[in-house]
Amino acid sequence: MTASESARSVVRHSQLVKVRPERRDEYLALHAAVWPQVEATLTASNFTNYTIFIHDDLLISYFEYAGDDYAADLERIAADPVTRKWWTHTDPCQTPVDGAPEGAIWVDAREVWHLT
Amino acid sequence: MTASESARSVVRHSQLVKVRPERRDEYLALHAAVWPQVEATLTASNFTNYTIFIHDDLLISYFEYAGDDYAADLERIAADPVTRKWWTHTDPCQTPVDGAPEGAIWVDAREVWHLT
Repeated sequence: MTASESARSVVRHSQLVKVRPERRDEYLALHAAVWPQVEATLTASNFTNYTIFIHDDLLISYFEYAGDDYAADLERIAADPVTRKWWTHTDPCQTPVDGAPEGAIWVDAREVWHLT
Repeated sequence: MTASESARSVVRHSQLVKVRPERRDEYLALHAAVWPQVEATLTASNFTNYTIFIHDDLLISYFEYAGDDYAADLERIAADPVTRKWWTHTDPCQTPVDGAPEGAIWVDAREVWHLT
């Protein structure tokens, strides 16, 4: 581990959502070219090392939150008009997994173990 | 991005498997204290930033492979007698997700998008 890595203090997240089968191609096409402002807003909001994976109709995200006020950063993302426009494209592609809270799209999984 | 991070060349993986509900507590207890030799073997085999998450009966892993011969490193892990012993505890807790190849336990999801 380098000095710069050891200085990182992040909270790891993995989230789940299902893609609607009839919208799968549309979702993949959107994510082959995510809008630069959407990515810039995530970066400005302390979301780092963010990856989305797919298996069958399950979407799996992993990201590291490097800020110190997650709720405020979520609000910052939701206040960005370009991100809100992006969501009008992605939301119709997605449907919650079982166990998601009412109104949620992505649901957080819980960390069990971590190897640095 | 720091110079040390830009120098990293990793392949990101996310894998899925289900925990058998009757073995869930056993699985979580094992992962609250993973054997040091199991972790050391992963590290020696170029597995980094490895995390396992859980949602309902789904286990989700994320790791970054930093070596240059993934097949050889998988063989190195499978050749470690302590890891093989560990697997005699963990394998009975797990059952493959739909779509897993014959004989596989964890199945690889496919990367859709990444934000550095």
